[in-house]
Amino acid sequence: MLNFESDYIEGAHPLILERLAQTNMEALSGYCVDRYCESAKEKIKAACKDKDAEVEFIVGGTQTNQLVIDSMLKPFEGVVACHTGHVSVHEAGAIEYTGHKVLTVPGHNGKMDAAELEKFIADFYADGNHEHMIYPGLVYISFPTEYGTIYSKNELTEIYRVCKKRKIPLFIDGARLGYGLSSPKNDLKLSDIAKLCDVFYIGGTKVGALCGEAIVFTHKNKPEHFVNLTKKHGALLAKGRLLGVQFDTLFTDDLYFKISQNAIDQAMKIKKALKEKGYKFLLDSPTNQQFVVMENSRLSSLKKHVQYGFWEKVDDTHTAIRFATSWATTDEKVEELIKVL
Amino acid sequence: MLNFESDYIEGAHPLILERLAQTNMEALSGYCVDRYCESAKEKIKAACKDKDAEVEFIVGGTQTNQLVIDSMLKPFEGVVACHTGHVSVHEAGAIEYTGHKVLTVPGHNGKMDAAELEKFIADFYADGNHEHMIYPGLVYISFPTEYGTIYSKNELTEIYRVCKKRKIPLFIDGARLGYGLSSPKNDLKLSDIAKLCDVFYIGGTKVGALCGEAIVFTHKNKPEHFVNLTKKHGALLAKGRLLGVQFDTLFTDDLYFKISQNAIDQAMKIKKALKEKGYKFLLDSPTNQQFVVMENSRLSSLKKHVQYGFWEKVDDTHTAIRFATSWATTDEKVEELIKVL
Amino acid sequence: MLNFESDYIEGAHPLILERLAQTNMEALSGYCVDRYCESAKEKIKAACKDKDAEVEFIVGGTQTNQLVIDSMLKPFEGVVACHTGHVSVHEAGAIEYTGHKVLTVPGHNGKMDAAELEKFIADFYADGNHEHMIYPGLVYISFPTEYGTIYSKNELTEIYRVCKKRKIPLFIDGARLGYGLSSPKNDLKLSDIAKLCDVFYIGGTKVGALCGEAIVFTHKNKPEHFVNLTKKHGALLAKGRLLGVQFDTLFTDDLYFKISQNAIDQAMKIKKALKEKGYKFLLDSPTNQQFVVMENSRLSSLKKHVQYGFWEKVDDTHTAIRFATSWATTDEKVEELIKVL
Amino acid sequence: MLNFESDYIEGAHPLILERLAQTNMEALSGYCVDRYCESAKEKIKAACKDKDAEVEFIVGGTQTNQLVIDSMLKPFEGVVACHTGHVSVHEAGAIEYTGHKVLTVPGHNGKMDAAELEKFIADFYADGNHEHMIYPGLVYISFPTEYGTIYSKNELTEIYRVCKKRKIPLFIDGARLGYGLSSPKNDLKLSDIAKLCDVFYIGGTKVGALCGEAIVFTHKNKPEHFVNLTKKHGALLAKGRLLGVQFDTLFTDDLYFKISQNAIDQAMKIKKALKEKGYKFLLDSPTNQQFVVMENSRLSSLKKHVQYGFWEKVDDTHTAIRFATSWATTDEKVEELIKVL
Repeated sequence: MLNFESDYIEGAHPLILERLAQTNMEALSGYCVDRYCESAKEKIKAACKDKDAEVEFIVGGTQTNQLVIDSMLKPFEGVVACHTGHVSVHEAGAIEYTGHKVLTVPGHNGKMDAAELEKFIADFYADGNHEHMIYPGLVYISFPTEYGTIYSKNELTEIYRVCKKRKIPLFIDGARLGYGLSSPKNDLKLSDIAKLCDVFYIGGTKVGALCGEAIVFTHKNKPEHFVNLTKKHGALLAKGRLLGVQFDTLFTDDLYFKISQNAIDQAMKIKKALKEKGYKFLLDSPTNQQFVVMENSRLSSLKKHVQYGFWEKVDDTHTAIRFATSWATTDEKVEELIKVL
Repeated sequence: MLNFESDYIEGAHPLILERLAQTNMEALSGYCVDRYCESAKEKIKAACKDKDAEVEFIVGGTQTNQLVIDSMLKPFEGVVACHTGHVSVHEAGAIEYTGHKVLTVPGHNGKMDAAELEKFIADFYADGNHEHMIYPGLVYISFPTEYGTIYSKNELTEIYRVCKKRKIPLFIDGARLGYGLSSPKNDLKLSDIAKLCDVFYIGGTKVGALCGEAIVFTHKNKPEHFVNLTKKHGALLAKGRLLGVQFDTLFTDDLYFKISQNAIDQAMKIKKALKEKGYKFLLDSPTNQQFVVMENSRLSSLKKHVQYGFWEKVDDTHTAIRFATSWATTDEKVEELIKVL
Repeated sequence: MLNFESDYIEGAHPLILERLAQTNMEALSGYCVDRYCESAKEKIKAACKDKDAEVEFIVGGTQTNQLVIDSMLKPFEGVVACHTGHVSVHEAGAIEYTGHKVLTVPGHNGKMDAAELEKFIADFYADGNHEHMIYPGLVYISFPTEYGTIYSKNELTEIYRVCKKRKIPLFIDGARLGYGLSSPKNDLKLSDIAKLCDVFYIGGTKVGALCGEAIVFTHKNKPEHFVNLTKKHGALLAKGRLLGVQFDTLFTDDLYFKISQNAIDQAMKIKKALKEKGYKFLLDSPTNQQFVVMENSRLSSLKKHVQYGFWEKVDDTHTAIRFATSWATTDEKVEELIKVL
Repeated sequence: MLNFESDYIEGAHPLILERLAQTNMEALSGYCVDRYCESAKEKIKAACKDKDAEVEFIVGGTQTNQLVIDSMLKPFEGVVACHTGHVSVHEAGAIEYTGHKVLTVPGHNGKMDAAELEKFIADFYADGNHEHMIYPGLVYISFPTEYGTIYSKNELTEIYRVCKKRKIPLFIDGARLGYGLSSPKNDLKLSDIAKLCDVFYIGGTKVGALCGEAIVFTHKNKPEHFVNLTKKHGALLAKGRLLGVQFDTLFTDDLYFKISQNAIDQAMKIKKALKEKGYKFLLDSPTNQQFVVMENSRLSSLKKHVQYGFWEKVDDTHTAIRFATSWATTDEKVEELIKVL
């Protein structure tokens, strides 16, 4: 059966497996203190064009959000996110579990509006009662968003301007960063991302790795004793080499970007074909997640041929479903999918 | 200067001070294990017409919300509250500090709508992804609400029906319970409240006590080892007699209800007079908090004569302010206020 | 029946009740922003001879320990305390509940040894693995200790020297501070305490108040947005006047010290009489708690005449029990107790 | 250079890498809901001879300890561990971060004594004040311990008897379980372990996997909504296949036990050789960690030839160092090590 359920249904890019096998019997120290982690960090800093950046590797995305948010916030602060943000909805309360509130502003197809953010912060300070409230202490956005949308360079610049004005750090969740950067609609480079926020992460799990996210702290924002905090969160990987070798491979010869491009190319083929066939989309996504509005009556037969992601109920007779492509999606599978639809 | 800033600007009802003085030198055990706590508990149970209820005394309201919510929730659950609820906004993240998320539904002049609550819970279970989400595990409403409004018996019955259908306990924050029960618009008795929820508290701090809230667990809902949890929260008062004597006094000869009635009578006088003078109200409050929409230009002169609560900005030229009456508000002060306005 | 169970069995010193009654109907703002809190803070600062100190009022002792420790520690740090310290044993996990570990060093009749503390910290830094361990981030001692013992000026100076050398703040739990300062063995003044630590609290609950502890932050150590943190902990009292008036009274005309002296005088009478009668003491306590080793066979008859505190099993046939005096203990009661024994 | 620093210096057993490569392009659902996880779970249950056991896969050891302890404890409970236990010392406060206290009993070469445990629990209940203390709610031991020692069947049976008598679940940290079961001194089978506790984990990270621990809940002890709790802890791996394939491989044809045997054989060779050469051991370890007491003066030259683990200072002139073998340790390396020493 065809499977477009998510962008993490396959294992790792073959080059990663190859490198893991080649380096397998080398004796290396644990906890990301090894030559592959070091090399990967240098390559990522070079790709970000930021030699002062500090890079740390973590296994998974929720864990990364939890750790970054908890370690960047002061105890009287919360994180501001879109009401549709991953940290707001789909992390089983992982942020609140660290003792911090998620403060929400509206999401527009997953995106935060700089003016609304500015008003939210201004309103907080205008409230006479704000000593009984949680201070906005970090702004969280995702790129691409949970809805596949991306920020333009202007939009991101504007959000970061608000953050800097209020001295609130900006955190970009890049679980699918490669797919955002490879979008035909995108006008941001990786080095722009590094400039326009205080911390972000480069998603590996959804972009070719077995697991792994690379946190990049820019502008000297790495929290004190970060290794200790990582351990306290249960997030310090013993065999750090697993993360080092993977990111070292992904950032050699632009592999990360090349394989991201494949996901986008395949997604655009699907989008074009479905538009021509008259399908309706929930929104105009320029990245690897495409959200199609289907009549409920069609779903039971569709389910027999292809696995897709349930997204949301649109109305009593329609449902939005998600087709996700990835680094691993082949031409054949996409053609088959188009045929099925 | 006149002061209508809040309902906790005076000390305690004189009878309470008298009783504290009379019992002052009796040697009593600590931690609410004394004859006054015992007596107060019995009187509260009688007033609630629920002999199986279990009563516990806590010093303050945020502390009570924090303790009840944390001890009633399972670790995978959060509390559902109105977006305007005290626990959602004005407790400085006290609920999240316990590791639990506050899930919000719309507040309508501070009130939760049973149908919206039902839909919120249904949507949660309909989401294919709900194992990555926080389960609704407790419903929190306040009576009266933060906006002074109250639920009718029908409305409360309907909310509790939804809760029971989903096996989610209902918690009523009664920080101003006396003022709600004494409202001319109210059709609920204290015994109805006890029947129509799983835990509630009877506010003392705002209704005649120096401090103190009486939690009433009904329907066998008191959490295991509650004393231990109270201590862990830092909420176990050493000289529990301070709470026992106060609630024993408040629940002798209906003092709690008599003094609540005064607040309502005074508030209704203010409301009537201001309506006659053509003032506009933010909403139609039937309790001791009255929210008046004022032109900003008038505030600076008003401020010289009376302390009021800033509530919220209405538009660029208008502000909503709050006048709160209490058990201690006198005819003279109300007349003066009306004169000033 | 006689009652020497603890030092919080009576209500408040009569002058406190009088002042509460006198000020009862004054309209005051909440949350410790009122003239009595302000006045009390000034008097405490004067008594401490530290005009830069910052004073905050909290209702109870466990709550105070929890709040001070949580707000003084960084997220990778824990608090160092004696294994017998109140925070280590008898606060139902209140410190761990804030996410912080209590690191223990031996207690010697309740006291910490400066050399052992120094070694503990040195050992921590010597452990190659300390990035996987909790950093010592605050030192907690109590004065007097849970065993009634006190530190000499030399001993406290030495502990503080270790702390300053390692840049670790020192916190003194003064739940019974008055009783320690009034001991005939004591050579420390309140102003010495203020100099020789970074934060301490002056216990009210056990020394004449209905409730209340006054935290004194010295050397500019008050955490940022402390009111907000207090609210988040559920520890911000609405009617702050209750704390302000009490401490204002206690620090007027040296009332705090005078009533502390009574407890010590009575305790010394008991100690002397019991020594003369040949009783054995668990340890030599110079303050208001006296620990007597009794044959178990005598306890059942003793229990009929006097309430005492069970302290600990000494061996199969002996038990240590505690007699506590307080500001409220009278000559008559002490004479009766001596007669009974 | 030779490296005996730890048992996680190499990558994965080659068969694991092979299986990862073979299954790499299969499209599988995430979050450990895939055929390899299912198959691995069945094989583990069979190996445990417990068809009712429930198996869950987690990436790392500290994370597993944190999740198991937090989800098994009630809010008024703590975990009892040896003072040398991994959770007590070397997890950077990860347990306290979940809000729970680690209660300690003495460790004897890393082992808990059943009689001391029994006394600890009895003393807790004997303390009149235990409502102000943390209840012992889970017992944590490790097998082998942090010192390489193991429990005999009699010893484990006795500890479990105490636990069952007090209705406190027993949790065995099996980070190195394979090495314990393969020890010549061991008389416990995997199925005995499953019978003699309530939850344990089978360590993968240190026994042949790139990462991964398999939690086995026996006696119906799996907490409600465990997936949700795992997500909340940030511990739910997206590509669960990584864990499924690894454990499926380890539990096919007894691979887990065969490779564990190698570590033991190599460790015993080292032990025997060093004993013959007159080396002193810190303790008599029957598993893959050998602790040798060295003169400090020898360490600087030794360091040039072999990486070892610093263990602890023995006295001013001696240090205990650790040599760890693993599934990957070869005859050649062991011979070289013996030669160097």
